Amino acid sequence: MADRVLVPWEENLRNLPEGVRGSVYDGGGEPSGDLSDVVFYVVPYGRTQRVDLIERMPRLRVVQLLTAGYEHVLGVLPDGVTLCSGRGLHDASTAEHALALMLAAQRELPRWSIDQEAHTWYPHYTRSLAGSRVLIIGYGSIGAAVEERLRPNECEVIRVARTARPERDVYGVADLHRLLPQADIVVLVAPHTPETEGIIGATELALLADDALVVNVGRGPLIDTAALLAEKGRIRAALDVTDPEPLPAGHPLWDAPGVAITPHVAGGSATFYPRARSFVDAQVRRWAAGEPLRNVVPTRR
Amino acid sequence: MADRVLVPWEENLRNLPEGVRGSVYDGGGEPSGDLSDVVFYVVPYGRTQRVDLIERMPRLRVVQLLTAGYEHVLGVLPDGVTLCSGRGLHDASTAEHALALMLAAQRELPRWSIDQEAHTWYPHYTRSLAGSRVLIIGYGSIGAAVEERLRPNECEVIRVARTARPERDVYGVADLHRLLPQADIVVLVAPHTPETEGIIGATELALLADDALVVNVGRGPLIDTAALLAEKGRIRAALDVTDPEPLPAGHPLWDAPGVAITPHVAGGSATFYPRARSFVDAQVRRWAAGEPLRNVVPTRR
Repeated sequence: MADRVLVPWEENLRNLPEGVRGSVYDGGGEPSGDLSDVVFYVVPYGRTQRVDLIERMPRLRVVQLLTAGYEHVLGVLPDGVTLCSGRGLHDASTAEHALALMLAAQRELPRWSIDQEAHTWYPHYTRSLAGSRVLIIGYGSIGAAVEERLRPNECEVIRVARTARPERDVYGVADLHRLLPQADIVVLVAPHTPETEGIIGATELALLADDALVVNVGRGPLIDTAALLAEKGRIRAALDVTDPEPLPAGHPLWDAPGVAITPHVAGGSATFYPRARSFVDAQVRRWAAGEPLRNVVPTRR
Repeated sequence: MADRVLVPWEENLRNLPEGVRGSVYDGGGEPSGDLSDVVFYVVPYGRTQRVDLIERMPRLRVVQLLTAGYEHVLGVLPDGVTLCSGRGLHDASTAEHALALMLAAQRELPRWSIDQEAHTWYPHYTRSLAGSRVLIIGYGSIGAAVEERLRPNECEVIRVARTARPERDVYGVADLHRLLPQADIVVLVAPHTPETEGIIGATELALLADDALVVNVGRGPLIDTAALLAEKGRIRAALDVTDPEPLPAGHPLWDAPGVAITPHVAGGSATFYPRARSFVDAQVRRWAAGEPLRNVVPTRR
């Protein structure tokens, strides 16, 4: 029985290297037939991450994810199987969504929508993104993509990462309390770790100026939800991720004044797909050629 | 009686060159006292352009506007008075609003607002700005400012101006019908002239792909409103300017599906004010020093 790769899109099949057998599983329904010949499994992108199928793949060598996070696979990953993440594939989409949330909040787009619904033409002056001081917390690849999009918008950008890198103008988390009072906008793009959980809590929110905007496209638990609710009306927020998530109906965050919510859609817009497809093509090609794979997750086994 | 300059902001008074007398008129209520000593009048920014005061200023030498348009002054401008426009002061604000409208439409922010109101967490995938082909119609200073903001967003930009400038990759209006079918997004930043009126009409809209987005931050009459309404549901639009304007309650554009409306607020956000203040300071300084003024409008007298 020949080895088989399981890819999420028909396009991937068409781009398989010579001699590699493949079939498509897009995550809808159950994959057809026996999976015992699958050696390379690309977990389809979507809310249902079918990592349970791994146990039906005894000859598996590589699991390729299309998500940046990989914690959900570690428990079911057999010894000796290489795990690769989708790190970087969502950067452009996520950074773009962060920019959209910042602009919509500064230019008061939700207010104009309400006026439109009421057939009301009532111009007034708004804030702008230009001239704002933006603090990016979590200065990795998404943070850099956010900064790149801010640059022509005449913002001042302040970068904060876990570790200060003064030679690259990156501050450390230890500087955060000193930096927060100067920020007009705070953008959270950090991952969820014990160190980042609640990185914006009551103390940090209190340090922000009135009307400052907190944008979260990282993970919900970076912000202490109760502390944010306590500041409602004073601090504005635009949240693509929440804690809890999904946000249950009736949760006070839904109706908090000055808070805009999108349901964890930053990373998954149209621009993700062409990137993800060509990344899968390239990974399969590298694997077939015996070249090192990208985005290998150190699984410490 | 010494000459006097009439400036719109207290900050301008503090920055007057030595020997220049000034007072503030911000456009609220009536200016105090006799205006016969006013030689330099900065027309306050706002919907009510008090150009009627000019006839009370017999010693007037300079009228400085804070708007890019100046047609409303020509009829009341005495011979020999220099007219200066506010051209350029609104570029950053207008380009930023155009970007906000594009991102909000592509990432479906109005839909998420409706879901938020209903306490509904229902993610789905959206378009993105990245990967879009954007046609900028009216490639002047605002068009360039829009392009600059699009560049890090991974868009392909196509520039159209009145006259083709092939050496600078600018197409002419004559190429428009050939270019429209390729566009995902069309941004209108042109002024209203006999040549630009209805530049996007039934023929042009019919050439656009399904779901294309038309953004207007130029002037309302650039788009044929009836033709846009006839395409409703097929073509999306985000309009900061409309025809008629202000849009009356009950007008069908308010409720047209896929159409977002903001009430002519692109140019007037917070970032305009510091620019306008320092421009006024510099113009008064140039005038007092006998240097040439900027933004002088050729009034052909």
